[in-house]
Parts: sequence; C-alpha cells; structure tokens
Amino acid sequence: MYSVCVRGHMMIAHSFRGELFGPAQRLHGATYVVDAEFRAPELSAEGVVVDIGRATQALSAILEQLNFNNLDDDPSFANQNTTTEFLARTVFERMAQRLGRGELGPGSERLASLRITLHESHVAWAAYEGSLPKSP
Amino acid sequence: MYSVCVRGHMMIAHSFRGELFGPAQRLHGATYVVDAEFRAPELSAEGVVVDIGRATQALSAILEQLNFNNLDDDPSFANQNTTTEFLARTVFERMAQRLGRGELGPGSERLASLRITLHESHVAWAAYEGSLPKSP
Amino acid sequence: MYSVCVRGHMMIAHSFRGELFGPAQRLHGATYVVDAEFRAPELSAEGVVVDIGRATQALSAILEQLNFNNLDDDPSFANQNTTTEFLARTVFERMAQRLGRGELGPGSERLASLRITLHESHVAWAAYEGSLPKSP
Amino acid sequence: MYSVCVRGHMMIAHSFRGELFGPAQRLHGATYVVDAEFRAPELSAEGVVVDIGRATQALSAILEQLNFNNLDDDPSFANQNTTTEFLARTVFERMAQRLGRGELGPGSERLASLRITLHESHVAWAAYEGSLPKSP
Amino acid sequence: MYSVCVRGHMMIAHSFRGELFGPAQRLHGATYVVDAEFRAPELSAEGVVVDIGRATQALSAILEQLNFNNLDDDPSFANQNTTTEFLARTVFERMAQRLGRGELGPGSERLASLRITLHESHVAWAAYEGSLPKSP
Amino acid sequence: MYSVCVRGHMMIAHSFRGELFGPAQRLHGATYVVDAEFRAPELSAEGVVVDIGRATQALSAILEQLNFNNLDDDPSFANQNTTTEFLARTVFERMAQRLGRGELGPGSERLASLRITLHESHVAWAAYEGSLPKSP
Repeated sequence: MYSVCVRGHMMIAHSFRGELFGPAQRLHGATYVVDAEFRAPELSAEGVVVDIGRATQALSAILEQLNFNNLDDDPSFANQNTTTEFLARTVFERMAQRLGRGELGPGSERLASLRITLHESHVAWAAYEGSLPKSP
Repeated sequence: MYSVCVRGHMMIAHSFRGELFGPAQRLHGATYVVDAEFRAPELSAEGVVVDIGRATQALSAILEQLNFNNLDDDPSFANQNTTTEFLARTVFERMAQRLGRGELGPGSERLASLRITLHESHVAWAAYEGSLPKSP
Repeated sequence: MYSVCVRGHMMIAHSFRGELFGPAQRLHGATYVVDAEFRAPELSAEGVVVDIGRATQALSAILEQLNFNNLDDDPSFANQNTTTEFLARTVFERMAQRLGRGELGPGSERLASLRITLHESHVAWAAYEGSLPKSP
Repeated sequence: MYSVCVRGHMMIAHSFRGELFGPAQRLHGATYVVDAEFRAPELSAEGVVVDIGRATQALSAILEQLNFNNLDDDPSFANQNTTTEFLARTVFERMAQRLGRGELGPGSERLASLRITLHESHVAWAAYEGSLPKSP
Repeated sequence: MYSVCVRGHMMIAHSFRGELFGPAQRLHGATYVVDAEFRAPELSAEGVVVDIGRATQALSAILEQLNFNNLDDDPSFANQNTTTEFLARTVFERMAQRLGRGELGPGSERLASLRITLHESHVAWAAYEGSLPKSP
Repeated sequence: MYSVCVRGHMMIAHSFRGELFGPAQRLHGATYVVDAEFRAPELSAEGVVVDIGRATQALSAILEQLNFNNLDDDPSFANQNTTTEFLARTVFERMAQRLGRGELGPGSERLASLRITLHESHVAWAAYEGSLPKSP
C-alpha cells in the first residue's frame, strides 16, 4: 500500500461542555497542524498516489473554512464538543466529499483510505482514519 | 477508527547481553520519549476517545516507575534485555492493566487497541501495538 | 556562555484589532509551545545553569495563569493585541519577576539573560530575549 | 506486533514528465529523510525485532546507491517518474531483497512486514508498506 | 530584542566544484526548509515585529525564484558553489532588498537584523545573519 | 555571520550528587542528540564555513569516546556532575582542541565561534557557546 501525506494548519477558538474537560470548559483555543494521508494500492500512470498539488489545495480549502473562527459559533457543530478527535473526523468527511466530487482529479478513485491527524501540541495529537467509498 | 495520543518520557540506564549488541553490552543509558496512542471505533457521548487527562496521568505513572533507574537492577526484568522494543511491550502491558482496572474512566471499555512508541534518538524508534481485551 | 532550556505549552483564545491582521481580527485561538532558555556565564557548584526542576515549575506556573483562557477577557492585556511576540515578552517579564523573588533557588543570581520562544505552528514562531537585572 | 525503525537520508536530482507536475517537470532535487520500519509478531531470543546495526547498514547501503545522483540518468528508472511514493517502493524492494539474501542476520525471517517512509519537506511525505515473503 | 520567524521551502538541483565535496561534485539536489527570523528592539503600535503575512509572502516570492530549478543553470550563481551557507546569504540579501524597497510594509524600518536558516536534512543546517541597514 | 551545524548522538549512563537532583541522584541515563554549530564571518574559496564531512567526523569521534559508557566511571569526570550543560562544555572543549590541531582542514582558522547543543528530551536541552582562539 502506498501513502502520500500533505500538511496544513488552522488556529481556532472553542470551549467544551462536560466536567471531564476541567478548565477546558472555558473558552480557549488551539493551533492544529493537520496531516492528510491518502492511501492507494497502486500508483497512477504518472507514478503518483494522488495529485499532490490538488491534495494540498483541497486540505487548505477545508482548513480555511475553520481557520480563525470560534467553533462554538459554527452551526455545523451545534451541541457538539469540537474535540481534536471529532475535528479529525470532520476534516476526513469533508475531504471524502471533495474526493467524491472528483476535485482531486482523475485517478483519485483508486484511493482506498484516508487518515487525518491533528497535532494539538508537542505532547498530544488525535486522528481519524477510514476507508473511502468506491466511486461509481 | 479514531486515535488519541499522549506523550511522556523517561531516562534510564541499562546494559545488554549478547554479542549482537556490540558496545551496547556496556552499561549505558537512554532517554525514551514515549507515545501512547489509544484507538476506538466510536467516540464517547462527550466526543472523546479517552479522557486525555487520565491517559496522561496513567502514562506518567507508568513511566515514573522506570524513570531515573538502572533497569539492570529491576527484578521485573531479570534475565531480560530491556531493548527499546521490549520496553514498548512493557509499557503496553502496564497500560492495559490500568485500563482493565478502570483507571482511565468510564468509556475506556470502548478502546479497541493501543500502540506504544519509544523514540530513542533522532534516528531510531520502536513500538508495540495490540488489541485490548474487551472489558466484561 | 551556558544555556539550559525547558519547554511547556498553553492553549488560548484571542482576537486582534487592526486591518493588518485580516481574518485574525476574528476570535480564534492558538497552541503555544513555549521554550524558556536561561543563560549563565558559569555553572553552579553542582554543575548547573539553573535548577531545572524549579525552572520547569516556574514556567508551568506562568503558563497556567494563561492556559485555557480567552486573553481578550484578561485585564492585564486591556487595549493590547496579544500577538505571539507580545506574549513572549509577557512570559519573559513574569519569569524575570519570579527570578527576582528568588523562586528559582540559590544561584539563580548568576543568570545573565533569558530567551522566551513561542512556537505557534510548524511554520511560525516568535521570541523575546533580554538581560536579567543583577540581584542585589 | 513489534516495530523497530531506523532513519537515513539521501540528496538527489530528478525531473518529472507530465503536465500534472507543473514546475516539477524542470530538473530539480530533494532531500529525502528515509525511515525503514521493520515489523515482527515476536522478538528474537536477544529481545529484538531485527539487528538494528545491520538494519542501519542495509538502509545506508541502499541510500548510498541513490545519494548524490541525478535519477534521470539511472537506467533502473528509465521511463519512470521517480516520485516520492515510487522511491518509497524502490527502497522497499531493495530492502526486501537484502532480507531475502539473509543480510540482516539470523532471525530476520521472523519479519512480517516493512514500511518505508520518505519525508521530502516539513509539509509532505510518502510511504510504501507491504508484507515480506516468508523465507524458505 | 523581539523575533518573529516564518518558514518556507524549496527543492533544487545543483553540483559542487572542488575535491572537498567528494560525491557532491555530481549533479544532485536538496530540499531546503527555510526559516526567516526578523528581529526588532521594539514592537509596532499594533504589537508586531513585522507584518507576518507580508513576511511570509516575501519569503515565498524569494524561494519561488529558486524552487524547482537546477541552480547550475542560474546566471546569478555562475562560478559559485551554491552551498547551503551561500544560499542562506543569498536569501538574506534578497530579503534585505525587499525590506529596503518597503515591501514588508510601514514599520519594517524598525527591523534591526535578520537570520536566514536553511535546513538541508535532519542532521545538517546552515544560516546567515546580519544587521539590516537603517532606512533613510 | 555564517553558521553550519551538524548533528550526532550518544547514549550514556550517569548519576548526580546533590539534593538538588532529587531522583536523578540514582544511576540513570540519557540519549543526547548533539548539534555542533560552527560560525565564521566569511566563507572559504569553495564557499563553505567548514568542511562538513570533516566536521561530522570530528563530532562522531568525540561522541564515540562517550557513547555507550557510564560516565561515573570516566576518570575525566571525577568529582564532577556530568549535567547536560557540563557535557555541552566538554564537547565544546574537545572540538576546540581538534580545531586547534587542524583536524577540520585548511580554512578552519577562519572559524570565530562554536555552539554545542545537547537535546536530552523533547522538553529540555542545554548548550555551551564560546569564541574560538585564533590559530597562530
């Protein structure tokens, strides 16, 4: 299995509900350094897993929608704690949608799975990975 | 599959037996920067894989028992080379025991697997990963 | 000249005023991974620049006051953009005060200067460095 | 499953064919920081996944053949874009051959799989992983 | 003294002349991860060392002129070994010119010095730092 | 001022004397990832600060004398706590001696200063820097 991974980042504010979170129940924020790893069993004729330029643009576009925002005010996340692991899933779903719409170019239907990792500090990160639906 | 990873470290002395190890047969030491990655197929109601505060405390407690010690003197490791890969398994087993005792809080029975990585320098690391037994 | 550096981190929310900041005028947040580098021309009798345990505790105590807060609500920062470079100076001043009160232990009067670096992402950081006043 | 990983690097020139690559169609170059992760279900009697000294030597020998070269002139890569993902596969195949010839020492037949990762910058990497054939 | 640092990268081919360079006399290449650290004794009214957006754009523009090129073909470098330390100076000079032309915005005349660091692998980097001329 | 930096590492055992050190009074160990930064005001005719090959060899030779040892048994360190900052000075002195003997090749008399940094974990490092004596 081949992988290609590109990196971006976003800087957001949010707060969490639940005693579990202690002081993180207060409004605070985070820088997330975000890795998107695309996996495919075979390379394209050009020798790539995915067009790395388009992959980088797609990741940037997804992060741009969240960057410099207070996620507590984003209706997509109503009644939801925007934990690092939850946001990893969010980025995964949004990338999968872009893949489904063909935004990553011809050949991206070969992609088998995707892993999104959000680094929140030098001592903690979270990730979500899953299979990608086969394009029709 | 979701992952959450926390990091700690320990500084130990030890020596190895066997010609394979060359100069590492002498008493020497290492800093191990230790990552504990917890994996679960679903998030809790709060939106987390595991209580990151308790996970960090559990990792610290495990490392504290080894930190600032000469592992050659630890009866748990009698007749055993405490290689990086062996120590990754040791940390895995001790974390699995803490999970089994419920120390990581309600919901940790959802955890499916665990990966422990020990970084020993900028050019080498070792890891152990395995499934976690289902809590009764 | 000798240096010893310890690392901590904080996760805060804030917003900036001024067109210069573009979308960062909105409420957002950041993880700051914070390095405190202490410098001295000579080592103590024990062979250290500073008691690394106390240095780590002092850095943690300073970051704890800021961690998990919306800096826009902190009266210390009224009418002030809490940029990364400004916060580096803030941490510097607070550490210098603790040094002045003797909190870092006997011998810390040997310290000549201090550099505080805040890493805000994998592509940007800021720092403040300055001399430390001689203790009387 | 246990892992041991060692790191090396190489600095090469190359160019790509195909509009997909934009300006990377021009002759340019890259530093690849290369990780070789060896995996085994059990440790040897000495307590290791693989002889880390031999593993490091084998990786160095493979990279030495590519280091400081223009890959466009290497007949092994005729009519092939030497993308990062393709080179990860190349290093994988060459390491698998060395394993098959017993170069990594007794016990290396226990190895189950191998993952080769090439870091090409602070914002992109690629990898190839696969099972290793059982030695006869 | 305050610092702000931004990061970019470039991927180039080149070769060196002189026995000193051994196999690096052959055409090869490198990824350079490039840090530009701007220093000023005081912050602007907005609380910044330099407009980080413009600083990032200026660094990108400088690197874009070199990225995906064979530096052996660049007339600016005729009869010159484009070593990492030499390229650090080149980026320094080009950034100083942009500063002199006012491209980094009002207030950049406060800048006292600049340090450019090129990371060429996980085990080597080079830098050039110098004072900046006072704007008239 | 130009800089070139090379990296190596060593893995040692030691213990400290003095209540200041708490549990580090016990025999323990560390991996030190060691950076040697050489500085010169001008480049050589070849365009370098120092022969990077010889610099890397000199650093390796210095670290080899310490690597895989219990520093408590090394007569050079009798009655001395081998703290990270002390060891940074030790590596500095040994590199300065090699420079004085001309081991880093013609042109190394241009070197103005040297900085040795020892990274002991992901959260702590120490350094020693100083001028280099002018060769006769």
